[in-house]
Amino acid sequence: MISREDIVRDLKEFISFPSVSADSSQQQAMFDCASWLAGHLYEIGMQRTKVLPTSAHPVVYGEYMIDAALPTILFYGHYDVTPVDPLNKWDTPPFRPAIKGDYIVGRGASDDKGQLFTHIKAVAKLLQEGRLPVNVKFLIEGAEEIGSVGLEEFVAQHKTLLRCDAVVVSDTKMVGPGQPAITYSLRGSVKVEVTLRTMAKDLHSGTFGGYVPNAAIKMAEFIAGLHDKDNAIAIPGFYEDVRDPSPAERAFVAANGIGNAALMQEAEAFAPWGESRFSMYERISSRPSLEVTGITAGYQGKGFKEVIPAVASVKLNFRLVPDQEPGRISKLLEQHVRNEVKDADVKITYGAVGYPVIIPRNNFYVRAAALACEKVFRRKPRFLRNGGSIGAVDYLYTILGVPVVLLGFARADDNMHAPNEKFYLPDFFKGIDTIRQFLQLVASGMPKA
Amino acid sequence: MISREDIVRDLKEFISFPSVSADSSQQQAMFDCASWLAGHLYEIGMQRTKVLPTSAHPVVYGEYMIDAALPTILFYGHYDVTPVDPLNKWDTPPFRPAIKGDYIVGRGASDDKGQLFTHIKAVAKLLQEGRLPVNVKFLIEGAEEIGSVGLEEFVAQHKTLLRCDAVVVSDTKMVGPGQPAITYSLRGSVKVEVTLRTMAKDLHSGTFGGYVPNAAIKMAEFIAGLHDKDNAIAIPGFYEDVRDPSPAERAFVAANGIGNAALMQEAEAFAPWGESRFSMYERISSRPSLEVTGITAGYQGKGFKEVIPAVASVKLNFRLVPDQEPGRISKLLEQHVRNEVKDADVKITYGAVGYPVIIPRNNFYVRAAALACEKVFRRKPRFLRNGGSIGAVDYLYTILGVPVVLLGFARADDNMHAPNEKFYLPDFFKGIDTIRQFLQLVASGMPKA
Repeated sequence: MISREDIVRDLKEFISFPSVSADSSQQQAMFDCASWLAGHLYEIGMQRTKVLPTSAHPVVYGEYMIDAALPTILFYGHYDVTPVDPLNKWDTPPFRPAIKGDYIVGRGASDDKGQLFTHIKAVAKLLQEGRLPVNVKFLIEGAEEIGSVGLEEFVAQHKTLLRCDAVVVSDTKMVGPGQPAITYSLRGSVKVEVTLRTMAKDLHSGTFGGYVPNAAIKMAEFIAGLHDKDNAIAIPGFYEDVRDPSPAERAFVAANGIGNAALMQEAEAFAPWGESRFSMYERISSRPSLEVTGITAGYQGKGFKEVIPAVASVKLNFRLVPDQEPGRISKLLEQHVRNEVKDADVKITYGAVGYPVIIPRNNFYVRAAALACEKVFRRKPRFLRNGGSIGAVDYLYTILGVPVVLLGFARADDNMHAPNEKFYLPDFFKGIDTIRQFLQLVASGMPKA
Repeated sequence: MISREDIVRDLKEFISFPSVSADSSQQQAMFDCASWLAGHLYEIGMQRTKVLPTSAHPVVYGEYMIDAALPTILFYGHYDVTPVDPLNKWDTPPFRPAIKGDYIVGRGASDDKGQLFTHIKAVAKLLQEGRLPVNVKFLIEGAEEIGSVGLEEFVAQHKTLLRCDAVVVSDTKMVGPGQPAITYSLRGSVKVEVTLRTMAKDLHSGTFGGYVPNAAIKMAEFIAGLHDKDNAIAIPGFYEDVRDPSPAERAFVAANGIGNAALMQEAEAFAPWGESRFSMYERISSRPSLEVTGITAGYQGKGFKEVIPAVASVKLNFRLVPDQEPGRISKLLEQHVRNEVKDADVKITYGAVGYPVIIPRNNFYVRAAALACEKVFRRKPRFLRNGGSIGAVDYLYTILGVPVVLLGFARADDNMHAPNEKFYLPDFFKGIDTIRQFLQLVASGMPKA
């Protein structure tokens, strides 16, 4: 029997690698962590364990094939973590994991090393007992926190290796303490930077103030025109492909989603915002959004500089819902810029794009996951739509063409991406049990929900 | 006789000090330059030469009093220069002045070491010849390029020392080659930063995108509302104190000012901008202006970050005309912010303010300067209004209560504040002659214009 102490000891070792994918000085730690992880998969009895290169950080792979006729589950997770800044806000060193009461504390405790370990340790137990009931594969990437760079190409190149019947991801949150959640929808994403130039060079704000076009003002006018009076996106044609939720789906979302009060509390915003004819939860799930993520113009240091900026730029982030398509949204934006911005040179550059994803809730694997949750947590899971985008989910769903089950075990206050990141150990062990139940339900052909 | 060679040699020595007031690592060079300058005033025969402390860089003072009953002219200039960046764009080292054809090249060649030297060398010649006809004083500051920090207090504290009948400043440009100019009006200035906070913290643009108030968007809307459709300033009450120029003054400005084509060529802007019912020259001289000098919000690095900014700030620069008052403009802005910006914490901070200045053109000293120009350049000077603000002029005019004559000898293409700053030597020597003529005209009680 693998003891809880052994499991926690292994998790602490995993967390102790400073595998910060965004930090180029941690290249060695990234390799060490990937090697350790591949070794760990080997130790628990996995086959064909290896570290595979990508265009960014390497991927760790392992599998255990019992019988090609049985279903195959692909577990996806990531061993990279976010930077630890501000370091002085941590009560204990981020890469020296500590047990505090019922929590394990450290960078990656919940995002995603701890949650990934629910998969690994469930499989380890079943292997040790000789009771693994289906085929399993692991795909563990090292670049999730920097946008899953290289993963799309990797999945496309290794389609055969990764062939499976469903993907399971544990990198999301539960709704509240003791209340499990399955995420079945993610928004797509278009990131774009628009740069305007109105003059050959910056000019003096005194000598020239009043007769030349200020790029910062022109940019502000452009941004102010991106939303209408009800905060809907004012780009012509933008909503054409937005799938109207059926009354049934709208009712389901209302019943399962999160209420305005809870959302406002989480945001700590001074006032609500957005399209008034939709609930806040709908605004971040069934509706697309457009946020300004950065504006740069003129002088930004201390004090003042007497300058009329010749150049201004804005970073925009669109979030898309079915059936919006990133390429079409880009075209609409470009047309809108041409219509609205006169007398300026315009440059438009794009970041990574992602497609919106919606997984049918009545899919067999989703229902198996829901029943597994119910057996372990003694509560039916809530079905959530998430306003964010997970690049890996988009790629796995699109390229492998199988359902992706997003089964999160983290709590809202686990400080993901923040100092003192933690993971509630009782949920960690329930997560292991849930994954185990899930695999057994998949093997047994679970009863209809 | 002081030879032209001696004068150029002295100017080269003056320029060779890297007296960059904005660069704290050049503190020693600032002191060395001030000491050298005080010594130089002593060498040419000035009395009571000294280096006096201010709250910023020291001031150099010197005087030559012939007879308290005679008029006293105070020459103002500055020995500090702007930073030399980008250094790689200089053809010769900025602090190793070089003679190239008819030009002297180096940082400070025209702004303001060369122009100041027209005063010093005119006085030097008259002293050497024993023909100085009026009392003269020099006030040479070391902080002009950083906003004349400390000068207002210095002038107020040394009112008696600085007592005079007129101030002469040579820190402006001529209209064109061979065409002298006297600047008789400057705009005032209010610099202010407005910071908005809409949430306790930045939020994720996916998870929260669509229901929380984005500070960058709110800021863009605020900025877009600062000007109306005809680009007039949309702050209620803003134009109440703007003095309407008389038809005579408007005609004078039209005849003396700079045309739209020349202004557009100078600006290298892709299109004109501003209040259509005024000429471009009027927009930068008799009309106030409001420019955005900087916007900061969200992520400004390379690539993209998934963030909804909780905070955004804008730096604004108002330019004021008679009879606008900085304190009243600040109050109007604050009221406007209260009216327009809802559901946000607002912080407003101010930089240095300056009052608009207009010197009567028919003043005796202005007329003497004009006649001196005409005698030397063989052309009547053009009378200009300048859109900029010169803090020192504001302080000297307001505190000493005497006319300030702005008599510039630089050319438009002298690269002030830019690489390869230069000064046209024939104009430099004409400048010396003009100052000499001016002092003689003041002494003789020149004929009516």
